[in-house]
Amino acid sequence: MSDAPTVSTTPDLHEDGSPERLAIDTIRTLSMDAVQAANSGHPGTPMALAPVGHTIWTKFLRYDPATPDWPNRDRFVLSVGHASMLLYSLIHLAGIEEIDKDGKKSGKLALSLDDLKGFRQLNSKTPGHPEYRHTTGVETTTGPLGAGCSNSVGMAIAERWLAARYNKPGFTLFDHDVYTVAGDGCMMEGVSAEAASLAGHLKLSNLCWVYDSNHISIEGDTALAFDEDVGKRFEAYGWNVIHVNDANDIAALTAAFDTFRATTDKPTFIVVHSIIGWGSPRAGSEKAHGEPLGEENIRLTKQAYGWPEDAKFLVPDGVAEAFKGAMTDRGVPLREAWQANFAKYHDEHPELAAELDDLFASKLPKGWEAALPTFDTDAKGIASRDSGGKVLNALVKQVPWLVGGAADLAPSTKTDIKGAPSFEADNYGGSNFHFGVREHAMGGVVNGMALSYLRAYGSTFFVFTDYMRAPVRLSAIMELGVVWVFTHDSIGVGEDGPTHQPIEHLAMLRATPGLDTIRPGDANEVAYAWKAAMEEGDQPTALVLSRQALPTIDREKYASAEGLMKGGYVLADSENPELILIATGSEVSLAIAAYEKLVEQGIAARVVSLPSWHRYEAQEAAYKESVLPKSVRARIAIEQGGEIGWDRYVGLDGATITMSTFGASAPLAKLQDKYGFTVENVLKVSRALLGKDA
Amino acid sequence: MSDAPTVSTTPDLHEDGSPERLAIDTIRTLSMDAVQAANSGHPGTPMALAPVGHTIWTKFLRYDPATPDWPNRDRFVLSVGHASMLLYSLIHLAGIEEIDKDGKKSGKLALSLDDLKGFRQLNSKTPGHPEYRHTTGVETTTGPLGAGCSNSVGMAIAERWLAARYNKPGFTLFDHDVYTVAGDGCMMEGVSAEAASLAGHLKLSNLCWVYDSNHISIEGDTALAFDEDVGKRFEAYGWNVIHVNDANDIAALTAAFDTFRATTDKPTFIVVHSIIGWGSPRAGSEKAHGEPLGEENIRLTKQAYGWPEDAKFLVPDGVAEAFKGAMTDRGVPLREAWQANFAKYHDEHPELAAELDDLFASKLPKGWEAALPTFDTDAKGIASRDSGGKVLNALVKQVPWLVGGAADLAPSTKTDIKGAPSFEADNYGGSNFHFGVREHAMGGVVNGMALSYLRAYGSTFFVFTDYMRAPVRLSAIMELGVVWVFTHDSIGVGEDGPTHQPIEHLAMLRATPGLDTIRPGDANEVAYAWKAAMEEGDQPTALVLSRQALPTIDREKYASAEGLMKGGYVLADSENPELILIATGSEVSLAIAAYEKLVEQGIAARVVSLPSWHRYEAQEAAYKESVLPKSVRARIAIEQGGEIGWDRYVGLDGATITMSTFGASAPLAKLQDKYGFTVENVLKVSRALLGKDA
Repeated sequence: MSDAPTVSTTPDLHEDGSPERLAIDTIRTLSMDAVQAANSGHPGTPMALAPVGHTIWTKFLRYDPATPDWPNRDRFVLSVGHASMLLYSLIHLAGIEEIDKDGKKSGKLALSLDDLKGFRQLNSKTPGHPEYRHTTGVETTTGPLGAGCSNSVGMAIAERWLAARYNKPGFTLFDHDVYTVAGDGCMMEGVSAEAASLAGHLKLSNLCWVYDSNHISIEGDTALAFDEDVGKRFEAYGWNVIHVNDANDIAALTAAFDTFRATTDKPTFIVVHSIIGWGSPRAGSEKAHGEPLGEENIRLTKQAYGWPEDAKFLVPDGVAEAFKGAMTDRGVPLREAWQANFAKYHDEHPELAAELDDLFASKLPKGWEAALPTFDTDAKGIASRDSGGKVLNALVKQVPWLVGGAADLAPSTKTDIKGAPSFEADNYGGSNFHFGVREHAMGGVVNGMALSYLRAYGSTFFVFTDYMRAPVRLSAIMELGVVWVFTHDSIGVGEDGPTHQPIEHLAMLRATPGLDTIRPGDANEVAYAWKAAMEEGDQPTALVLSRQALPTIDREKYASAEGLMKGGYVLADSENPELILIATGSEVSLAIAAYEKLVEQGIAARVVSLPSWHRYEAQEAAYKESVLPKSVRARIAIEQGGEIGWDRYVGLDGATITMSTFGASAPLAKLQDKYGFTVENVLKVSRALLGKDA
Repeated sequence: MSDAPTVSTTPDLHEDGSPERLAIDTIRTLSMDAVQAANSGHPGTPMALAPVGHTIWTKFLRYDPATPDWPNRDRFVLSVGHASMLLYSLIHLAGIEEIDKDGKKSGKLALSLDDLKGFRQLNSKTPGHPEYRHTTGVETTTGPLGAGCSNSVGMAIAERWLAARYNKPGFTLFDHDVYTVAGDGCMMEGVSAEAASLAGHLKLSNLCWVYDSNHISIEGDTALAFDEDVGKRFEAYGWNVIHVNDANDIAALTAAFDTFRATTDKPTFIVVHSIIGWGSPRAGSEKAHGEPLGEENIRLTKQAYGWPEDAKFLVPDGVAEAFKGAMTDRGVPLREAWQANFAKYHDEHPELAAELDDLFASKLPKGWEAALPTFDTDAKGIASRDSGGKVLNALVKQVPWLVGGAADLAPSTKTDIKGAPSFEADNYGGSNFHFGVREHAMGGVVNGMALSYLRAYGSTFFVFTDYMRAPVRLSAIMELGVVWVFTHDSIGVGEDGPTHQPIEHLAMLRATPGLDTIRPGDANEVAYAWKAAMEEGDQPTALVLSRQALPTIDREKYASAEGLMKGGYVLADSENPELILIATGSEVSLAIAAYEKLVEQGIAARVVSLPSWHRYEAQEAAYKESVLPKSVRARIAIEQGGEIGWDRYVGLDGATITMSTFGASAPLAKLQDKYGFTVENVLKVSRALLGKDA
C-alpha cells in the first residue's frame, strides 16, 4: 500500500476554535443530527469530509448562491450520494436560493434548516440520496456508486465542448471546473475506472476527483477486498495524482486544489486520507457508515468537538453568513461579469448567442423539424440503424449541440456524423465522440453532458444495454432528454448468436418508468421516432433499431408513419376487424405481409404498429379503444423479443409470436424460420386463434 | 505510452517453415476460411493470436484431449469471444473428444473439420461466439467483452478453494492454472478492471491473462479512446506484468509463460503486442476485425504465408498429429497419475472423496434437504433477507461447496456464514467471499466458480442488478446452477429513496429466459425457494428478498408453503371465488389481510401466492387452470414493483396494484400509503372491479 494514511486521530488536535472549524463542525453536527432524527442514513462520511466540502465551497467553487443556474458555475458532484447530508449542509450554509421546476426563483432557500430536519421524510427536499431537479444545488442524482464520477466526466466534456464552440476572443463564456467527491466504493466500481480512463485520454484538466480513502467499507476494512494502489492506477490513466494525508489538514487540501487549478494538461486526482465518523466513538469503524450514531455517541462526539452537547441542528451565529460570504465574494463578481459579457456577446456573435439562449432554455432552434427526412416506399428497404443515421445526420445540422457517439461501434450503429471531426484532446470542438468499449461510462458521461445543456446521445448494440442499465435508469430518474441509440435489436443480429441477440431487453426498457422506448417499423417511423425523442427535453428516449434491412412501407396504401407520435396506430385495416396483428420494428412488415394473405383468405384483419408503449399508454382511452377495441379479443403480438409484457395488449385470449428462449447463431432467415417469424406461421396462429382449421 | 509495440510487420520474417509455423498458419487459414465461408465473423484476431494459442496449448496447457472433463485440467478462456475461430481451430487440432450433454463420451471429435466448415450455421457446433455446454472444450460462453476475464478469476478462485479444502499431504488434487486471452475491448470494460483488482487482492498466482494489444478497435486506432498505460494499471492492482513485444516471437511468449508458471505470489499479466489480421493486406487495420477478408485478400495472405493459395480448410499432414501429440504427451500422464491418486484418495479420505464425487457429478449430498428449517407462525415476522440468511447458514453445513458472498453488503444481505472464515489470500479455504463493491465482477466471478464445480452465490441489493445484468444473463445462457441473492427488493427500502428502490427489476429478471426468479412471501416460502434453487443444478435462480419484516404466515390456516415449488398456488380460498388476489413477496400478507376483510364483506375471494412465474409457467395447464381459472376475470395483482408482465395473469379485465413511477425517500409505511399498498386500497380496487360501490 503506497496509500498508507497518517491521519490524525484525536479531535482536539484540531480544536483551534477558528471560524473555519466552527463551520466544519456545523456540517458534521448537522449531518449527525439529521441522520439521528430520521433514524436512518449515513453520518460517517459527511463527518469525515466536512473539511473537504468546506474547502472546495468556500475557497474554490465559483458559484453564486443567488444564481444557482448560472451556466458557467463550477460543478460539485457528490458521487458518494449516501453522504447526502454533506451536500445538504453545504447547500444550506451557502444559502443557495431555490429555482422551481419552471426555472423560476421561488423566493425560498433551496434548503432551510427545517428542510434539513425533514431529512429522508416523504415530500421533503432532503431525500436519502441527492436528487437532481428535486433540490436546487444538486447537480446530479447520485447513490449508485461511481455514477457521479461518470457524470462528472460528462460535465467536464460538455464544458470543453461549449468552450470550444462558443468562447471567442474576449468572450470566455465557459471555463468552469468540475469537482467530484468519490469514495472507496466508487473506486471499486468498474464504471469509475472506465470514466477515469476516458477522462485521462481526453486530458480533461477541468476535472478534479477527490477520493475519500477511509479504508472502510460496509463489510469492514477495505483490506478485505481492496488493496490496490489507486493513485498509481490513476497515474496509469494519465491523471495528475496528489495525496493529502489528513482530511483535516486544510492547508494541504488547499494546496492540492491550487495544484488542480494550475494544471492544464490532465485531470487531477486527490487522494484524501480520512477517518469515517471522525471524532465520534465509532470513528474509523464501518459502524459509522450507514446507521445513526445513537444519542449517546452523538453527545460524546459533540463533547469531543467542543460543541454544546444537547444542541440539535445548531448553526452558530455567523457560520452561515461567513460561508455564504466567502462564496458570494468570489461568485457574484464572476457571475455579474459573465452576464455583462454575455450581453455583449449577443451583439458581437448574435447567431451563437441565439444558440446559447436556446441551449440554456432547453429549446430547439426554430424550424428544426424541417430537417427530418422522409423516405420513399422501398420493398428492399433500409436497416433502421441506417435510416437512423441519416436522420441524425440531418438533425445535427439544425441542432449543433446534438452531440454524442458510440461505445466503439459507430460504424455499426451508424451514429457517426459524416464529415465532422472527432471530439479529442486536441479538438474539443469535435462532435463525434469515441467513448471506447465502455458502455457503462458512456451512459454516465452522456447523462453528465445532458446535465450541462447538451442534447447528448450514446449508442451501442442493444444487448449491451446490459452494461449500462444503471445510467439508463438514472437518465429516466433525472428526466434527462438524452437519446439512447440501440441497434442490432433482436435475433436479427443473426450469426453473432445468443450472446449478441437481445431477448429480454425490450421488456427491461419498457418496464423502466419515464423512459420512452421506441422500436420503429420502417425508415419513416424512424424519422418520427427521432422527432419524438428531440421534442422530449425532459425525458430520455431509447431508439431500438435493426441491423437488417426493413422495407420502407407504402404510406399511400397504409397509414402515415406520423401515427408513431401516439405510440401506436392502425397501420392497415379491414371493416369490422375480427383479428388484430400487433407488431413493432422489423415485425411490422411481417404483419403487413400476413395481413395481406389473411385478407385474401377473407379474414377481416387489422395491423397495429405499436412502436412505443410509453407514448401509447399516455393516450386517451377513446383513442386506445379505437386502435385496440376491447371487443376484439383475437389479437396476436409479433415481436422478435421476449414475450413478457405483451399480455397487456393481447390479454388472456390472444396469442404471441415472440421469443421464449435465447436465440442461436445462424443466418437470420434460418432463425426466423426456426422461431416462427414467417408469414406462414402468423397465418397458422391467426387461423388457430379464430378457430379456423385449428 | 509505455506499451509501444515493436511488432514485426513482414510475414516472411517468420516463414521459417518450422512445424510450429505450419501449425500456426493452419490456425490462421482455418480461421480465415471459416469466416469467409460463413460470410460473417472475425478473422483478424485469430490470425494475430495464433502463436499465442499455439504456445499455450502445445507447451503449457495441462490437458488431455481425450478427457476434457478431467477436473484438474488447466483452463483456457477466450475472453475475446469474437475470435471464436481461434478456439475452434485449437479444439480441432488438439483432437478434443466430445462429451455429450449427459456427460458421456459421444465417440466423436468435439470439432471435426466439417464442424469448422459449418461455422456460424444453424445447429452447428461452431456458433459465432463460443458457447459453454454447446461445444466440448469451451470452458465458458464469451462474447460480451470482459466477461471471460471475470469468469477466469472465478475459476482461479475455485481452484484455490478446492485445493485448500481437498488437497492433503500426498494428494495434490488441485493445482491447475487458468489462462485467459483478452483484448483491448476487454481492457476498456470496467468489469475486467473490477475482476483484476480482486484477483490482485487475492494474489491468484494460478491466473494468467494475456492482453492482446493490437491498437485496433472497431472505430479505428485505439488511440481514439484508449491510451492509458495498461501494464502500469495492472501493477497497481498487484499483478506481475510482462511485455512481449511481438506476438510472433515464440521464444518470448514461452519465456513469459514460464515466468507465469514460476510466479507464486500474484497473478500474471502478459501484454502481447500483435498485429490484427497479421500477414494480410488488411493487417493492422480495423477492417481486419469483424468481416471476412474477401477471397482476393485471402489469396494474397496465403501467398504471404507460403500457403497453397487455393486450398480451403487445409490442415497439412502431420500438423494435427503434432499438436495433439504435444498435448497428450504432457496431459495424459498427468491425468492418469491424477486419477490413480484420486482412487487412493477414496481410501485415505473417504468423506472428502465422497464430496468430490458429488461435486464432479453436480450432485448434492444425500439428505441435504433435511437441513432446511421451518419457521413458526409469527405475525411480527422476519425479513426474507434474514430468513434467507438462516436457511443459507443451515444449507452450507450440508453442502460445504455452497460458497459465495456479497458485493460489500453481507451485513445487509445476510449472506455471511456465521463463524466461517473469509476467503482471503492467506486463507483460501474460507467460505465468506468479499467481492468488494464490484457487482459486475462478482457476477462473472460467481459464474466462473460455478464453471469449476462450486455451487456459488452472489449477493447485493436488488437495484444493483443494474450493474450485473450481463453476468446474470450469461448464467442463464450457460445454464449454471448459481444463486443470486437480491435483497432490499422494492420500495420497502424506504428512506434510501428512488435510486435504491427497484421497480423494473422484477420484469427484467422474469423476462430473462432460463432464469428462475423467486420472490418468496414469507420465511417458509424462503426455505422452499432455497430448496428450489439448490435442486436446479443447471439453471440459475434469483432470490428476491425483502429488507423489511414479513409476517410468517399461519400455514395451518392457509396452504403449505410447499406450493412454492410449483411457482404459484392457492394460499387462501373461498368457495366459487369471484375475485382472485395475486401477490408475491411482501405483498402476500397484504393480500391475505385484504382477503380476510373481503370475506367478511361477503366477497368470495381467493389469494394466489405467485413467487415464481418461471416455475408456474412450467406447470401443466390443468394445474394452472385450478389456480387461476379462466372463468374468473376479476383478478388483482399486487406487487411493489412495476406493472409490466402482470397482464399475463390479470388479463384485459383485471387490475394491478403496482408501481408506475419511481419511488421516493420516506419511511416505508408512508410510501405504502402513497402508492396504495394498503388493505383499504386493495378493498377499494376489489369492490370497483366487482362493480360494487364503484
